[in-house]
Amino acid sequence: MNLLLVEPSQIEADGKLRVMGRQHTHIVNTLRSKVGDALTIGQRNGNIGTGKIISIDGEQTVIDACFDRTPPPPLPLKLIIALPRPKMLRRIIQSAVALGAKDIVFINSWKVEKSYWQSPWLKDSSLEENAILGLEQAKDTLMPRISLEPLFKPFVEDRLAEFSKDTRRLVAHPSGEEVCPVGLNAPCTLAIGPEGGFTPYEIDKLGEQGFECVTMGPRILRVETAVTALVSRLFS
Amino acid sequence: MNLLLVEPSQIEADGKLRVMGRQHTHIVNTLRSKVGDALTIGQRNGNIGTGKIISIDGEQTVIDACFDRTPPPPLPLKLIIALPRPKMLRRIIQSAVALGAKDIVFINSWKVEKSYWQSPWLKDSSLEENAILGLEQAKDTLMPRISLEPLFKPFVEDRLAEFSKDTRRLVAHPSGEEVCPVGLNAPCTLAIGPEGGFTPYEIDKLGEQGFECVTMGPRILRVETAVTALVSRLFS
Repeated sequence: MNLLLVEPSQIEADGKLRVMGRQHTHIVNTLRSKVGDALTIGQRNGNIGTGKIISIDGEQTVIDACFDRTPPPPLPLKLIIALPRPKMLRRIIQSAVALGAKDIVFINSWKVEKSYWQSPWLKDSSLEENAILGLEQAKDTLMPRISLEPLFKPFVEDRLAEFSKDTRRLVAHPSGEEVCPVGLNAPCTLAIGPEGGFTPYEIDKLGEQGFECVTMGPRILRVETAVTALVSRLFS
Repeated sequence: MNLLLVEPSQIEADGKLRVMGRQHTHIVNTLRSKVGDALTIGQRNGNIGTGKIISIDGEQTVIDACFDRTPPPPLPLKLIIALPRPKMLRRIIQSAVALGAKDIVFINSWKVEKSYWQSPWLKDSSLEENAILGLEQAKDTLMPRISLEPLFKPFVEDRLAEFSKDTRRLVAHPSGEEVCPVGLNAPCTLAIGPEGGFTPYEIDKLGEQGFECVTMGPRILRVETAVTALVSRLFS
């Protein structure tokens, strides 16, 4: 945790911030902070700033807070990811959010195992928790929107045109003809398939919506590595 | 496992390949392959090819093997990474190797906890196992060299000049002045610090050896995300 992300409701009228639960425990046990120490803090969907610890007891940390800096700019990226296996899901959310993605949709695909859609990690509270961990890692405050689309065809046919409007549309595919652009730095919707890739039918359906197949070369990467590698090379 | 990496000693005079242990179990339980199925195979430090399964029993899979293609080209990269916490180490090795890194050194740094150097994951057999998992993921056969340098100063003063000879020398540092190059595609030695970064002293010592500080922007990434993000943007 490189930034303590707080809710506006945690800030009292006198500017004091009260921190309990996971964040309090982290301050005490991991950061081993003491009264007088400074922390980087951020207000959910608001500014970043510096907080000075006024008191720590068994239940809460009280911080004198000042939010005076804007968070890092979001990436102009819409990310579509075939739902990964649950143990990868959390890391993928955290790293995509840490890299600056603000709009992430997990979709179904032929090669996504049906059981993945039953994962408790897909609950709203869990998606939010992992998004917060990504923001706290990256020193960011702007919450991403994370959506689930358990039916491939209705999403692609009915909602994808609007979702990807006014962006360059790319689908990462091992046998893509073009090399994935480097330093694109322009609005982009990037679709990343499951382990084993999208099926030819799925690639065709994405192609109908204007998605170009791009490749990163002959190496096959795990989904979590591919997400980071692709996002990192598109935006510099 | 997208490629079955085998030792030359597993190949018999008649071209048949006998697979036991972890790889046999993977073929049976994960790939659920049957007699007649084709597999991508690779000879350690040699060619890639296609194998046809001739028989499967409780103990071994026998494959008719042909190695007729060269593996993907290695990256012209030397990677120096401050030893990460043990649970991250394996994933970092696997993803760096999957991306094509062939020379990786784990070094000490002020912010590396001493206990990390006692990890059983640093045994030769474990480093090799994780390198093989990275190669099998990426469909590669060329084993990387992974070294350990538990003393920062002797490595940097006595061995780093030779190690990084004839390469562009970069150290990733949150407060670096320059932005990390994109699509460098030239011989490069890249040093990545621990969570919390190298100390000013360490940055100075690396600077004496010609290392330029580069940054990826205001976002702080986990070491494993940073390794993938940096390598991916340097080589396209």
